[in-house]
Amino acid sequence: MSISTRQASIKELADIVAASIHGDPDVVISGIATLELAERNELSFFTNRKYHKFLLTTKASVVILHPDDRDNCPTNAILSDDPYLAYAKIATWLTKSEFQQAKIASSAVIADSATIGNNVNIGANVVIGHGSIIASDVILHAGCVIADNVNIGSDTVLYPNVSVYSNVVIGGETIIHSGAVIGSDGFGIANENGQWFKVPQLGTVIIGDNVEIGANTSIDRGAIEDTIIDNGVKLDNLIQIAHNVRIGENTAIAGCVGIAGSSTIGKYCAIGGGSGILGHLTIADHVHITATSLVTKSIRESGVYSSGTPLQENTQWHKNFIRFKQLDKMARRLNELEKKIGCD
Amino acid sequence: MSISTRQASIKELADIVAASIHGDPDVVISGIATLELAERNELSFFTNRKYHKFLLTTKASVVILHPDDRDNCPTNAILSDDPYLAYAKIATWLTKSEFQQAKIASSAVIADSATIGNNVNIGANVVIGHGSIIASDVILHAGCVIADNVNIGSDTVLYPNVSVYSNVVIGGETIIHSGAVIGSDGFGIANENGQWFKVPQLGTVIIGDNVEIGANTSIDRGAIEDTIIDNGVKLDNLIQIAHNVRIGENTAIAGCVGIAGSSTIGKYCAIGGGSGILGHLTIADHVHITATSLVTKSIRESGVYSSGTPLQENTQWHKNFIRFKQLDKMARRLNELEKKIGCD
Amino acid sequence: MSISTRQASIKELADIVAASIHGDPDVVISGIATLELAERNELSFFTNRKYHKFLLTTKASVVILHPDDRDNCPTNAILSDDPYLAYAKIATWLTKSEFQQAKIASSAVIADSATIGNNVNIGANVVIGHGSIIASDVILHAGCVIADNVNIGSDTVLYPNVSVYSNVVIGGETIIHSGAVIGSDGFGIANENGQWFKVPQLGTVIIGDNVEIGANTSIDRGAIEDTIIDNGVKLDNLIQIAHNVRIGENTAIAGCVGIAGSSTIGKYCAIGGGSGILGHLTIADHVHITATSLVTKSIRESGVYSSGTPLQENTQWHKNFIRFKQLDKMARRLNELEKKIGCD
Repeated sequence: MSISTRQASIKELADIVAASIHGDPDVVISGIATLELAERNELSFFTNRKYHKFLLTTKASVVILHPDDRDNCPTNAILSDDPYLAYAKIATWLTKSEFQQAKIASSAVIADSATIGNNVNIGANVVIGHGSIIASDVILHAGCVIADNVNIGSDTVLYPNVSVYSNVVIGGETIIHSGAVIGSDGFGIANENGQWFKVPQLGTVIIGDNVEIGANTSIDRGAIEDTIIDNGVKLDNLIQIAHNVRIGENTAIAGCVGIAGSSTIGKYCAIGGGSGILGHLTIADHVHITATSLVTKSIRESGVYSSGTPLQENTQWHKNFIRFKQLDKMARRLNELEKKIGCD
Repeated sequence: MSISTRQASIKELADIVAASIHGDPDVVISGIATLELAERNELSFFTNRKYHKFLLTTKASVVILHPDDRDNCPTNAILSDDPYLAYAKIATWLTKSEFQQAKIASSAVIADSATIGNNVNIGANVVIGHGSIIASDVILHAGCVIADNVNIGSDTVLYPNVSVYSNVVIGGETIIHSGAVIGSDGFGIANENGQWFKVPQLGTVIIGDNVEIGANTSIDRGAIEDTIIDNGVKLDNLIQIAHNVRIGENTAIAGCVGIAGSSTIGKYCAIGGGSGILGHLTIADHVHITATSLVTKSIRESGVYSSGTPLQENTQWHKNFIRFKQLDKMARRLNELEKKIGCD
Repeated sequence: MSISTRQASIKELADIVAASIHGDPDVVISGIATLELAERNELSFFTNRKYHKFLLTTKASVVILHPDDRDNCPTNAILSDDPYLAYAKIATWLTKSEFQQAKIASSAVIADSATIGNNVNIGANVVIGHGSIIASDVILHAGCVIADNVNIGSDTVLYPNVSVYSNVVIGGETIIHSGAVIGSDGFGIANENGQWFKVPQLGTVIIGDNVEIGANTSIDRGAIEDTIIDNGVKLDNLIQIAHNVRIGENTAIAGCVGIAGSSTIGKYCAIGGGSGILGHLTIADHVHITATSLVTKSIRESGVYSSGTPLQENTQWHKNFIRFKQLDKMARRLNELEKKIGCD
């Protein structure tokens, strides 16, 4: 499949990222596709060696690639030391939608005391509560519910059916995908003779600028202090952020991760999909946790951390699975053996 | 609890699946219940040996079961080599709702340029965007948001509050449950000096015929190519399907699974609940992955695969848990011991 | 941050939980904050030794704490053997919202055959189907969809965009957070020559009193019998409850847990976040399962249970990860060695 875009010359595109060109700068580009599927007048990019064979035969009119790969490119090239980033910027520019006229759907239900900025788009059946402030150039797609006293910064986009509870603060240039829930009550319960008594969740959620929050992700409000998602944080789909969590700037978290209450994640971290982080922990800056790891203690040093066991054919796995229960005994028996035959 | 159904004779029911009858074909059935709770004139089925004692004493007027179990059945029987499948077909027929009159709720907000087929039901507050095409006999329950240029095939049902992004294609006879999000942006981000730059997600999602998608499941649109869910795929609740994933025909995936970007899952696979599949992998046809496994490499051969460790009482587990950190050292010490005492 | 509350004397607050006071009972309280951030005339509490240093210097006008900590408290104290529970009750009383006038939004779409009790609040764009019964003092926030023949008990609150399928029964004083889906079809499929045939899901979901259900949690309806969530159960966010599951009274389940079909969880259990429980299992009362454990067998005895492996620095972990595949062989080699050198 090819994506149609606006038209631009290779020179115009290279200039977006201040890159040099190998080949004809005047060829006009009007679409984007993969190396394999690109046609004439389309742009592609080469960043994954797995697709090297498609580079050699691509019909694209220009390929964004690293200077080292220039000689393998059968067509024009935009040369970049970081071709994926260059592609991201060029593709963003090529596909930027035209100016969208501000429009407030007649079916939207907006409290009289809400403040709506300039050039805001509000979709069908959006609900905005008392005292909420929607800054300029915000887009709220159909079915979003914004409760009372919410504050949303300029240029932020909420896709359909996002739910935002009262008092939540969302920064500017932030994107929130469908089904996300921001500001639900944290899981605060106190035990009284076996029964649970709900602890009021009195804080809120503060989300910074340039954040992205994936589909069906939920972020709970703080118990007393606030749950904080700092500037530039990227959250994938179906993530659970519990009450009082703080996530530092520019940390990226993949899908299906759960972070328990009151944990603090540093800046520039990367958390792999399906991982779990227990409560009241502190994770340093620049920590990388691989997929489906369980973090049970604070991590004080940057680095790459993992847990988990390898996938095996089921009958082989089951033998090892069972032996895991004997691991401590095996270690003790090994100690005994070593003593007996005089090791060390 | 019993489920009331339309009335039919045992003969009519057996004919649906071309099964033979043991007993009286003329008894009239008007309800469905479990073996334990069924009353007179109700149908039940026996497929799980765990419930054998309830077969012996059931008050049902007919039981669907395997011919081998006929002699243990105290009442009439419909005999089938696959009684669970026979039950599914007979129960479907018995509980099929009456013809539902097409109705478009007055509160629905439908773009003038959308095309609505014959006999479509559109619930309250449904939103349908520009250029979208809804084929005949589709049911869109209340609160669904269908963005622009979406295509939905005939006889498909969307339950309340489903969100479908622009350009998504959904086949016919497909069911999508509440809270599902189809076509959200993939988690494409390029790093620029520590900060993340969003990579435009230009592809879409293509969903085949006869697919079922569970509650709060999210399926991201492709980055350039499309995310593809083939015919007959069954997805349970709270599943994350990342961008550019392809899932082959008739694969079934249980709840809480996450599949990372650009992975390809074969046909006729079964993925157990809570499993994770990393990105850019290929899983062959007829692969069965057991619950909460982590797949970190491509799987080239059909078979059953697993990972994980056994549940134990906490203090026992913790001893083994700690020893896991020494596993490599233990293996080396074992090698040394074997050398020392002259094994092999 | 401080939370403003209504005004009350320390004596009034202590009386709520029948606690004794150390200090001046007449000081007026009008806000809640953490020990660290509290100002004059605010209430705080001390329950986590991690925050001991903040107790010593707090500016709060009253702290709820255990009598043993009284001497470390620089200000007035409310003394309780369970200060967290006392805090929960006092904070609930202090922040209870004023009487809210019943209001039914003009944009709500309510079937003529639905029954709406006294003093019910129905938000914008709420949809209520045929024959549904909403008891007194219920609050349905904007965008909730209640299908046909649903029954909701008094004083229950549904936050925005909750989806409730037909015939579901929800008790009183229950709270359901945004994006939750109650009553979606269970994952019932029968195989016919490789293709899946849908098994009709004819049961429903019965939810008791005083239950809380987190954001984006999904609870499937039963296949024939019902899925049952008993009184006092607390479910966090993004939990998957499959068809026919039964969860006993006062059990608490943390986020991202998946429970497969037909499993029965006892009373007073605590299930840690990210855990998975396979189908057709029985878990006794008073069982505690730690985070991200996988339960593959029934648990007959109360106690604490765990599975999983420790987090390590990635290169260390990988050595152990690989060795896991040899665990059974290592055990056999250890047996051989012991035989050879005459252990036991």
